[in-house]
Amino acid sequence: MATANKEEILRSSGFGHRIGFGTRPAMLVVDMQVGFTDPEKSPLAGNLDSQIGAVRELLPIVRRGRWPVIFTTTGYDAHGQADAGLWARKAPSLRLLKRGSDLVDLDPRLSVQPGDLVITKQYASAFFATNLASTLTALAVDTLLVTGCTTSGCVRASVVDAVSHGFRPIIVVEGVGDRAKEPHDASLFDIDNKYGDVAPLAEISGYLASLAANDRPAP
Amino acid sequence: MATANKEEILRSSGFGHRIGFGTRPAMLVVDMQVGFTDPEKSPLAGNLDSQIGAVRELLPIVRRGRWPVIFTTTGYDAHGQADAGLWARKAPSLRLLKRGSDLVDLDPRLSVQPGDLVITKQYASAFFATNLASTLTALAVDTLLVTGCTTSGCVRASVVDAVSHGFRPIIVVEGVGDRAKEPHDASLFDIDNKYGDVAPLAEISGYLASLAANDRPAP
Amino acid sequence: MATANKEEILRSSGFGHRIGFGTRPAMLVVDMQVGFTDPEKSPLAGNLDSQIGAVRELLPIVRRGRWPVIFTTTGYDAHGQADAGLWARKAPSLRLLKRGSDLVDLDPRLSVQPGDLVITKQYASAFFATNLASTLTALAVDTLLVTGCTTSGCVRASVVDAVSHGFRPIIVVEGVGDRAKEPHDASLFDIDNKYGDVAPLAEISGYLASLAANDRPAP
Amino acid sequence: MATANKEEILRSSGFGHRIGFGTRPAMLVVDMQVGFTDPEKSPLAGNLDSQIGAVRELLPIVRRGRWPVIFTTTGYDAHGQADAGLWARKAPSLRLLKRGSDLVDLDPRLSVQPGDLVITKQYASAFFATNLASTLTALAVDTLLVTGCTTSGCVRASVVDAVSHGFRPIIVVEGVGDRAKEPHDASLFDIDNKYGDVAPLAEISGYLASLAANDRPAP
Repeated sequence: MATANKEEILRSSGFGHRIGFGTRPAMLVVDMQVGFTDPEKSPLAGNLDSQIGAVRELLPIVRRGRWPVIFTTTGYDAHGQADAGLWARKAPSLRLLKRGSDLVDLDPRLSVQPGDLVITKQYASAFFATNLASTLTALAVDTLLVTGCTTSGCVRASVVDAVSHGFRPIIVVEGVGDRAKEPHDASLFDIDNKYGDVAPLAEISGYLASLAANDRPAP
Repeated sequence: MATANKEEILRSSGFGHRIGFGTRPAMLVVDMQVGFTDPEKSPLAGNLDSQIGAVRELLPIVRRGRWPVIFTTTGYDAHGQADAGLWARKAPSLRLLKRGSDLVDLDPRLSVQPGDLVITKQYASAFFATNLASTLTALAVDTLLVTGCTTSGCVRASVVDAVSHGFRPIIVVEGVGDRAKEPHDASLFDIDNKYGDVAPLAEISGYLASLAANDRPAP
Repeated sequence: MATANKEEILRSSGFGHRIGFGTRPAMLVVDMQVGFTDPEKSPLAGNLDSQIGAVRELLPIVRRGRWPVIFTTTGYDAHGQADAGLWARKAPSLRLLKRGSDLVDLDPRLSVQPGDLVITKQYASAFFATNLASTLTALAVDTLLVTGCTTSGCVRASVVDAVSHGFRPIIVVEGVGDRAKEPHDASLFDIDNKYGDVAPLAEISGYLASLAANDRPAP
Repeated sequence: MATANKEEILRSSGFGHRIGFGTRPAMLVVDMQVGFTDPEKSPLAGNLDSQIGAVRELLPIVRRGRWPVIFTTTGYDAHGQADAGLWARKAPSLRLLKRGSDLVDLDPRLSVQPGDLVITKQYASAFFATNLASTLTALAVDTLLVTGCTTSGCVRASVVDAVSHGFRPIIVVEGVGDRAKEPHDASLFDIDNKYGDVAPLAEISGYLASLAANDRPAP
């Protein structure tokens, strides 16, 4: 492995370009469920108050533009969790996330609305074994504004899948969080270099404002 | 985000358990192709000599046991690279990996043999948009010994997908490498905590020896 | 197109061989939900009483052997049905299948039990955008006993995907049904020739009895 | 099963609506390879001369509009065909389709051009274990003009997957063929009722002409 600094190495390898915004965005909120956001109720949770704040700031802008809002939550069969497959061998605490339990409910601060789509998933990526890609394609979405948790877990896996499926992943930096700082920083570095554009809320709000100012084609 | 050290945090969240070896392994060598292993020929490449050494040590053991050996290589349509999708917007140098060019050939030190399977892929994960999962299922494989490059790129994405698809990912620590040390270390930490077991070559060789000593059921 | 009869043509093309039983079965019941089984409640439904009878005959044998039982039901978001994608343009009546409505409930004659897995799907195939393949792989299943409805719709699509994913599809002929006789017969012909083995309940019961008579390895 | 005629039954169930044309088409040619089109060279082949004629009529129109053209061919590893999975147990003659053999070459009458995309697949659906969905999404395609063979095999499986992935499948009726007449007719009936719109070449040419007459947005 080389000794030069990682930024230089990635740049000289031809990574780190901007993928850029498209013209038909949707917003994805990954696993902002009680099991990950409320440390008093769940050993899997961390303090994600500031990230929830950022999501709450972005949500009304997206809804005003009538762009799709999609939440995911991780949840398993209440009996036996056969649908947790082998992943629960690696992280047995995932078995706590039983469908029907409040750990699978979305954080109440997000106030999900009729018309939002809620997808229950079983694995790290929001795309894996779910209808997310089909739904985005049917809606002609080309850009995915990604928020949620955790950065090094389900967010990163979802971003890798998003660009692989053909959607532009834009990561809202204030809206993604993790249990620890180092995995968070390391995954943002990898994502920004290889899979999607990491951007601040202000830039994303500006993009949405400019889109809304134009006539948008009907879906 | 919490201030405790990352090891403690992950442990208290219930991650980092051993997924363990199964009884029907296969070996996966991710993207050990000239475009990633020969820095004189490719800006995408790094020095992976020691990793190739480890792969060369493990390959004959796996072949002797007649367990499947699967190589992947990343390659795109020679004209236009439409099959690189949006990923090539993020990392335009990927366009160099044209099918038919020697950058897509496997590193000659690996000496691929008839009966090995070579899968050409377009995205980070060896499973994404390929027949890898189907092939492993049809062969009744339950354990995937993972080697290749890069740790923070195609190896990590493949490991996340492996456990999601229902295979036990075992990462051969001497056999995976990256362009820079920090992303390599950060991804091994995340993998070992959340997706697969990171293990030394000696432990994996021991496992294969113990398997070979028993009668194995026919496929 | 040739003028010889279809049986001869397929045989001379090398189709129609037996895929055979494996050693680790699971039972799949496709979409035996009120919306498809109760003509008084749903325009999508047909009379499937005899098929439900066959499923009820097979279920206790499978449960006694402690092999997995998986039910699917087709259901969409109650507001807007964005997750019906483009399929609902072709068949608008699918929009009736709203999650939470009784049309999505499994037929009460099936008496689902704790430990059975119920997968809610949105498209024809039980595998499409669901965790079915992952779950079967994690459970080391190699053989899928397929029942349900409709033969020319969700059953056929599931069988095509099953063999593609690497599982042996065995269609329980008394346990699959359709809205009309011709599509039913035509799909059984295609399936038996190209994708899975169509077999009577008696043969499948005999297979399960012979498996149960042997010591089975733990999952 | 009901005794009314199948057309009435499907209509009263709410099937058979038009999915309609979108604004960004691509053309798919399924498995028009020597192994399926040249009966002198392959037991898997039928006479598809008229279908190839229809494809040759449509191709220049699509190319003139610079819409994507995608061919698939079914091909397996030359040694052992592990990538044929379980499908080759059902149809052992598929093993003849070895990559590198002329049975996997596209029919020479199609004159593939640089810029066309050729996807090698292993299973019935053109989408299964291939990058087709990703490529179409990245190209912002919304409508898939489907031709090729066989109607009851790879064409039908591809159409079911197309609508499931969120693309509008339009089947060019003169451009799809089968080994025998009954499976061909039965699958066209099912497709037109449940998965895509079966339309004559003249209607599709008219649609493309109307699109070309308008300014099309850049990809």
